[in-house]
Amino acid sequence: MCGPFGWGGFEPTSSREKKHEFFVDMTCEGCSKAVTRVLDRLGGVQFDIDLPNKKVFIDSEHNVDTLLETLKKTGKNTSYLGEKSAQ
Amino acid sequence: MCGPFGWGGFEPTSSREKKHEFFVDMTCEGCSKAVTRVLDRLGGVQFDIDLPNKKVFIDSEHNVDTLLETLKKTGKNTSYLGEKSAQ
Repeated sequence: MCGPFGWGGFEPTSSREKKHEFFVDMTCEGCSKAVTRVLDRLGGVQFDIDLPNKKVFIDSEHNVDTLLETLKKTGKNTSYLGEKSAQ
Repeated sequence: MCGPFGWGGFEPTSSREKKHEFFVDMTCEGCSKAVTRVLDRLGGVQFDIDLPNKKVFIDSEHNVDTLLETLKKTGKNTSYLGEKSAQ
């Protein structure tokens, strides 16, 4: 009776449904911790890091350019992959 | 007549003989490449990276604060260890 979504079928606002997806060339836990630290330092971000696939998913009040510049500060190869709908 | 150095044989100033030694918490080649990239981006530095011992030796026109801030951009734990005489 709640439909396939299980929570009444009602959608949250679109800003919470999409995450920016970035490629960040991380190869060890030290790399992912470094990314965590620069994003925490920036603030205003919620993020998940997928180390094996070298991806960072970010939900933020900041724009893509700011996020990309912040990630590039780490010195790692980084690129913006686009928006990804939250599961 | 110009001596073995080709420019009069006089020694460079002592500032070229000492290197600043930093601890940088690097754990893989990706970490050391990231450090290389941020230092290259800064410019005006000559450096060696000792990955196993997590150390970076820098000879630079920049002061220690600038070098430390640059290294910290990587998101890695970093500290200044002092000056080390070149071998």
